[in-house]
Amino acid sequence: MLSPSHLDCMKQTTFFGMLPSDVLDKILPNAQVSSFQQGEAVYRQGDTSRSVYCVAKGAIKLTVARQNGTEVVVDIFHPGTSFAEALLFRDDTYPVSAVALADSEVISVPKSLLEKQLREKPDTLPSLLTATYMHLHRLVRQIENLKAASGHQRVADFLLALADHNQNASTFQIPYEKQTLASMLGIQPETLSRAFKRLSMHGVEVHGPEVTLTDRAALEAFVNED
Amino acid sequence: MLSPSHLDCMKQTTFFGMLPSDVLDKILPNAQVSSFQQGEAVYRQGDTSRSVYCVAKGAIKLTVARQNGTEVVVDIFHPGTSFAEALLFRDDTYPVSAVALADSEVISVPKSLLEKQLREKPDTLPSLLTATYMHLHRLVRQIENLKAASGHQRVADFLLALADHNQNASTFQIPYEKQTLASMLGIQPETLSRAFKRLSMHGVEVHGPEVTLTDRAALEAFVNED
Repeated sequence: MLSPSHLDCMKQTTFFGMLPSDVLDKILPNAQVSSFQQGEAVYRQGDTSRSVYCVAKGAIKLTVARQNGTEVVVDIFHPGTSFAEALLFRDDTYPVSAVALADSEVISVPKSLLEKQLREKPDTLPSLLTATYMHLHRLVRQIENLKAASGHQRVADFLLALADHNQNASTFQIPYEKQTLASMLGIQPETLSRAFKRLSMHGVEVHGPEVTLTDRAALEAFVNED
Repeated sequence: MLSPSHLDCMKQTTFFGMLPSDVLDKILPNAQVSSFQQGEAVYRQGDTSRSVYCVAKGAIKLTVARQNGTEVVVDIFHPGTSFAEALLFRDDTYPVSAVALADSEVISVPKSLLEKQLREKPDTLPSLLTATYMHLHRLVRQIENLKAASGHQRVADFLLALADHNQNASTFQIPYEKQTLASMLGIQPETLSRAFKRLSMHGVEVHGPEVTLTDRAALEAFVNED
């Protein structure tokens, strides 16, 4: 049985939050909470998909292993977001690995149970489509950013998003190791260090993992420069 | 009424091709074919979504307008692919513009009609989910490539994909203007010219829009270099 805080967390997600309450009542007794230590995998690229997941604590990175042996972070999920819904109704293997970035808790719901409920209830369709659409849209924004913005601008954009995430605090912590952050932004770790130095001209002070934004407007202007 | 070749084209798409025949029978009489000249918009970012589309001829680019006035190509669709399915069940506006890259034909199916059919028939769920999943997966691959590969490697990867698209021909044409290609690959037009020169060392000859791959294995090795 889920605790009230785990239930709250599931209801915050686009997918589970939009499900009709009679469907939620049927699936919740089979939802499970699992803990993962930093670096541990929820699943590996190539595993058969069996569940839909919701992050309850920590953070989960989705990574792709490349032919040359390197690894790319394609997305990061925080508490209150679900992942792997797009594999519902597909008897398929995961195209990415899901790995804990910090000590994390993940709620899993068996796919077979969800598929049965979704098939029987047409009013669950919008929930599923909306969750997948939000995911698509998030990837399109990331592609836009990768193509149009410089590496330094992407670092600046990430710092602005982190500030938003921290209730617009002007001082906050970077929650990942620098190597993960560089991979997520598609730059080399050295470029990240150079970007932090350069951003000091645009209202950013970095001390270890701690960041202070002294001039948010200047940073926004830098992100939108041609 | 659709011509047999337009109908064939629709059935090639993941989405329409997987729909049960009784659902197809209901929607086909309301499908419409429209022509678009190069540069003409099928829809604009911000328009209310009303249809799901299938490319029958030519090519359609999806673009995002940035705050600073520039435009980014986030995806390109060819005949036999559908787009805008992810906006089904959402009373929403398009987050991207769809613009003809060449003189094109596009088949459109009214969203309201599709939504009604999908709600009534639970066996349409896999079709919709699979189409959206394929789209998600395609974006994830693009992100992986943008983050892990250099601009020159992305050009090489694109040439290999074009060769596949042309039944593995060793000589083929680049079907877009160089500016569109550069925007799709997230590089500057000057970088594209430099990449073509550099790729001559890896089995590529470029003369105007015509490309010849003289050593495919060398090109694949270059794409997978660290």
